[in-house]
Amino acid sequence: MGHPIYVIGHQQPDTDSICSALAYARLKQAQGADVIPARAGNINPETRFVLDRWDVETPTLVEDATADRLILVDHNESSQAVLGVRDAEIVEVVDHHRIGDIETSEPIFFRNEPVGSTATILTHLYDEADEAIDTETAGLLLSGLLSDTLVLRSPTTTDTDWSIAERLSETAGVDYEEYGKELLQQKSKLGEKQPREMVLSDFKEFTFGSESVGIGQIETVERQAVLDQRDAILTAMSELVSERDYAVFLLLITDVLEEESTALIAGDHVDTVEDALDTSFADRESILPGVLSRKRQVVPPLAEIFN
Amino acid sequence: MGHPIYVIGHQQPDTDSICSALAYARLKQAQGADVIPARAGNINPETRFVLDRWDVETPTLVEDATADRLILVDHNESSQAVLGVRDAEIVEVVDHHRIGDIETSEPIFFRNEPVGSTATILTHLYDEADEAIDTETAGLLLSGLLSDTLVLRSPTTTDTDWSIAERLSETAGVDYEEYGKELLQQKSKLGEKQPREMVLSDFKEFTFGSESVGIGQIETVERQAVLDQRDAILTAMSELVSERDYAVFLLLITDVLEEESTALIAGDHVDTVEDALDTSFADRESILPGVLSRKRQVVPPLAEIFN
Repeated sequence: MGHPIYVIGHQQPDTDSICSALAYARLKQAQGADVIPARAGNINPETRFVLDRWDVETPTLVEDATADRLILVDHNESSQAVLGVRDAEIVEVVDHHRIGDIETSEPIFFRNEPVGSTATILTHLYDEADEAIDTETAGLLLSGLLSDTLVLRSPTTTDTDWSIAERLSETAGVDYEEYGKELLQQKSKLGEKQPREMVLSDFKEFTFGSESVGIGQIETVERQAVLDQRDAILTAMSELVSERDYAVFLLLITDVLEEESTALIAGDHVDTVEDALDTSFADRESILPGVLSRKRQVVPPLAEIFN
Repeated sequence: MGHPIYVIGHQQPDTDSICSALAYARLKQAQGADVIPARAGNINPETRFVLDRWDVETPTLVEDATADRLILVDHNESSQAVLGVRDAEIVEVVDHHRIGDIETSEPIFFRNEPVGSTATILTHLYDEADEAIDTETAGLLLSGLLSDTLVLRSPTTTDTDWSIAERLSETAGVDYEEYGKELLQQKSKLGEKQPREMVLSDFKEFTFGSESVGIGQIETVERQAVLDQRDAILTAMSELVSERDYAVFLLLITDVLEEESTALIAGDHVDTVEDALDTSFADRESILPGVLSRKRQVVPPLAEIFN
């Protein structure tokens, strides 16, 4: 195919997804490959802050990837990928999530590691390729890492993430605790978002057996401000369940300072989710103490019980 | 689960599959992990030669992996894996084939690279872990690499495979061309095998869309000796098509010196395979010039056309 190769993250892109696309495209370009950093959706306020802070151009928006060649970063499930992914050619994958449903005809480079961010793995790929990481790229990678690990607080954080965060901070010339706090504040800026926009801003769809399940997450330092809109949020969630035929829609409102989440639920499979997460919902709400990570603490038990 | 972790290759194990299981188990053990090298089937004559040559114990036979934890090497498709794989927990994958249908609930270490052998990738993993490769392990890795690349002649061979072969030969204390020739001779030892055993000795099953397709390969320096049994082989292939409900069964009889394959075919989808491979079968036989690699030259066009 004469089509370009896009380096692209998931829909509803977060900071790790955008920064990884940018940083990996830079590495591939340094190695002589003809690739374009891309995104599958709008830039959120945290990521906007990061791009401005490091003075980096916003990746190209791809609305339909049919017939394109793709390097997937920060995801490996077609339900989370850009539209048209099933008619695109996947030429590489770099990710840190569960292994999803991507199949290829040819052998490809597929690197998935159970670490805190895709940025962490990319730092290793720079090392393996013997390419230096410049200040700007270190800033991008550090942003992806700190955002995805909630400044190294999430249970997904590994020793590798810690040492790479230290090293990237040095190259980028920032203090990672301080810079991380700035990021967390941006994360919480829900601004004047409508409920529907809010529940979809960090949202992933999973296919477990024959069921579709939606799991959203709002990471915030102001949980109560979000819960003040509880009824409007639940209405928006119910609408999405009907429109998209979800077995269940779970929304985690994650208090990154208290290190726990309030879960809201819509859809018919409340009992199943209660069993999976060992909790009980009263009036479609429950508290999940210690739960910070959708990927590590919520997806595995739900995948298990639905499959 | 209190079950052991097996490091295990595909059914009808070849030399790369067995040597990779052994070499990766050694690396994980050196890092303190409690793993057991294993195999999903009988040892072929070439691999027997290798195990004797380097004085290494045969890996444990696993007949059913239900409830076990598995590190898959040299494959990542459940149709090629040990029985019970769907009820096992996959904890890691190291491979060099197309991306198959393995899904997990948790994020795992999944390393797939488009190089000539799994042994090549494992050599990198030793380096990344800063573990020295001893003589015996170098012998195992070199055997996997030379066997899978037909002594660096297969089109799957990359520059990386060449440089790693040189380095491993040095550590193992053998000349890779000479040692490779010894391996090729073992590969050709079909001995007194029955036709059914012969077509299944290096055999893989693929699921393309809704169809099951079997692709066998016999790598030999004595193609005519194999073709002398042509009719008996075709009968065995037809029986397998009926028993296992294959859309098609393709057997590559690969002449590693002439660098081409004779293909035999059983099943109903002859036209489809002719289109995919741009060939035509006369009396269920065709010549495929330059075709040495099932993975690189045969699976992709078939996957494409059946999907």
